[in-house]
Amino acid sequence: MTDLSPLALPFPDLPPVAGVRLGIARAGYKAWDRADLTYAAFDEGTVVAGVTTQSLCPSPEVEWCRAALVLGHARALVVNAGNSNAFTGHRGRAAVEAIAARVAGTTGCRPSDVFVASTGVIGVPLPIDRAEAGIDAVLAAPPASWADAAATIMTTDTFPKGAVTHAIVDGRRVTLIGIVKGSGMIAPDMATMLGFVFTDCAITSPLLQAMLAEANATTFSCITVDGDTSTSDTVLAFATGQAGNAPLDSDEAPAADAFRAALIDLCRMLAQAVVRDGEGASKFVTIAVTGAKSNASARRIGLSIANSPLVKTAIAGEDANWGRVVMAVGKAGEPAERDLLSIRFGDTQVATAGMAVEGYDEAPVAAHLTGREIEIGVDIGLGDGAATVWTCDLTHGYIAINADYRS
Amino acid sequence: MTDLSPLALPFPDLPPVAGVRLGIARAGYKAWDRADLTYAAFDEGTVVAGVTTQSLCPSPEVEWCRAALVLGHARALVVNAGNSNAFTGHRGRAAVEAIAARVAGTTGCRPSDVFVASTGVIGVPLPIDRAEAGIDAVLAAPPASWADAAATIMTTDTFPKGAVTHAIVDGRRVTLIGIVKGSGMIAPDMATMLGFVFTDCAITSPLLQAMLAEANATTFSCITVDGDTSTSDTVLAFATGQAGNAPLDSDEAPAADAFRAALIDLCRMLAQAVVRDGEGASKFVTIAVTGAKSNASARRIGLSIANSPLVKTAIAGEDANWGRVVMAVGKAGEPAERDLLSIRFGDTQVATAGMAVEGYDEAPVAAHLTGREIEIGVDIGLGDGAATVWTCDLTHGYIAINADYRS
Repeated sequence: MTDLSPLALPFPDLPPVAGVRLGIARAGYKAWDRADLTYAAFDEGTVVAGVTTQSLCPSPEVEWCRAALVLGHARALVVNAGNSNAFTGHRGRAAVEAIAARVAGTTGCRPSDVFVASTGVIGVPLPIDRAEAGIDAVLAAPPASWADAAATIMTTDTFPKGAVTHAIVDGRRVTLIGIVKGSGMIAPDMATMLGFVFTDCAITSPLLQAMLAEANATTFSCITVDGDTSTSDTVLAFATGQAGNAPLDSDEAPAADAFRAALIDLCRMLAQAVVRDGEGASKFVTIAVTGAKSNASARRIGLSIANSPLVKTAIAGEDANWGRVVMAVGKAGEPAERDLLSIRFGDTQVATAGMAVEGYDEAPVAAHLTGREIEIGVDIGLGDGAATVWTCDLTHGYIAINADYRS
Repeated sequence: MTDLSPLALPFPDLPPVAGVRLGIARAGYKAWDRADLTYAAFDEGTVVAGVTTQSLCPSPEVEWCRAALVLGHARALVVNAGNSNAFTGHRGRAAVEAIAARVAGTTGCRPSDVFVASTGVIGVPLPIDRAEAGIDAVLAAPPASWADAAATIMTTDTFPKGAVTHAIVDGRRVTLIGIVKGSGMIAPDMATMLGFVFTDCAITSPLLQAMLAEANATTFSCITVDGDTSTSDTVLAFATGQAGNAPLDSDEAPAADAFRAALIDLCRMLAQAVVRDGEGASKFVTIAVTGAKSNASARRIGLSIANSPLVKTAIAGEDANWGRVVMAVGKAGEPAERDLLSIRFGDTQVATAGMAVEGYDEAPVAAHLTGREIEIGVDIGLGDGAATVWTCDLTHGYIAINADYRS
């Protein structure tokens, strides 16, 4: 298998979330000797929110979740790794329905309370018999940890990814835990990859949905590995309401600010962890765009830079080739004026007012580029729009992984 | 230097074009031992048309050509290789003006009759003294061949690229010759790379412009190597009018059809030659999209597939991973219905009506993918829109070339 990403982070200590129980099992979706089915059970009263891929070819799991999200209640989550079940027609839909029915029939909840996500190869129907046997096994299995769950949802990921934040809401300390998987086919439009957030905060489903969409806009939707958008991208947030706070039901409640900030922090950590596990990544790249016509314009310019193969290979080669950044701004299709453009690498301004900074010191730039954490700043010079985008470099590792990967 | 592309074509025998004389010289824009300045002189009466990059950060050469194209007359073309002179502010503009002035002063034409194009690293002002000395040298040099000119405009290209077509116009046989350079930073929006077309046909400048724009739309604008759009993309067409035909001045003249067809054929051959020299390319890929809502929609879907790193690496790995084609259709942002989508590799239908073709024969697909020429067909199932897009695969060679390349 692929080597551990050099940008990998250790898995954090994650406390339990009241009202959430985890399990893992081996359904055998691929010929591998590892657990590949993750299960989370939620106490009654748990509400759910979610954002899903903008792909016009979504998986049946995505369609199932969209329909169930309308009702806003959750009792279970099933995540299958090794097979995305996408583009499998009626057989794929039948597999999702069978999973929801099996969980509902065994645990006594409604099928619409069961959320399903799958990740892996596209085009192969998820085998219903293995899924059902896996669910039977996981319901009989001992409790699993966050680390177990984060490892079990992985596919080409090289390390499990999780994060925790807290907020004081209504005098109560609430906990937010997130786990995420993703490494390639990462270019979120609305959401990306599979990400799951769990909190004991009491909050209404519509407010959780609004806050998740807001957090997504500046976190998951601001990362890219390869510009490719998955058919299965899903981020779901589950709130069990057991923290004891008076339920949050309005964006204007003072306590909402604390929860929102904690949710955005959590999503940012998870999104950055995905970039740190980008296929073949050797450097973590932060692209800060300022001075654009709007925040949305700044984000699109940032993603144009972050998705440019020539920018990404220059970073891999530790080459301060800022001309490629100019190129990527020029092709973004957003308002820009060549002669107002400024670019910095790390703390060094390398270009300003449409040309190179006369005699800028290349030494700190070269030193910055040899590091693992690269920062590129671009000022468009036209307005107040700003956005930060995260990506990784493009290396031989990406080619090696993707010229061979298939089940 | 980089090895010859395995997709390279031999340079064709190209006849002279009456009214065009070529020259090459070594200006020394880089520390290399080769000619890097190409010159073409045109007889009086030559008209010109052109299409240039859609980049919002165009080079001063592009701005110069745009202004000169309005007048529609040409007496000289100067092409500098090894330095694009892009993003160099007032110094870059001064270099272009100096080149035009030197040619005009020496040959007696107007500066606005001199067209200039440069290609190479971004951000380094073109040295005026070397350009002027190079022009003096080339004006004193013996005549050069088409092969000389095609080789002298190259940068990371691994082989010189040229093509010829003919048309019978008004009973006269007219000749169209094209040369082109380009290998990376190839994702034309309107035009791409540097391409030059020379013909002896008598034709008005506005008609030549309209026909070049039309030819560009289905040729240069339908290729991509890496999705990156150059700051210097320029295609210019020069018509000396010495073939003896009655001047073409209307799109509706019967003779216009023959010239238009020959121009489109020429541009297609040149565009495909650029893909065959795509950085790191090992396979030439034709993507034919049918059944889209419009031709423009089909082209955007085709480019979404052609620019997907996951599709390109699958082809490099000779992997019939059509799920990645589904993904690329889904992210294109164009009308598509998952359950109407059909996909073929070579002549084998692999997916139809939103799922895999039951038990399709993998042997001919695998055999097709081991070849040098790959064909992917995608039917959207919604309308009559069609487009064909050409690209290459994404290999370790691309990374090797671009993680190191800089002057």
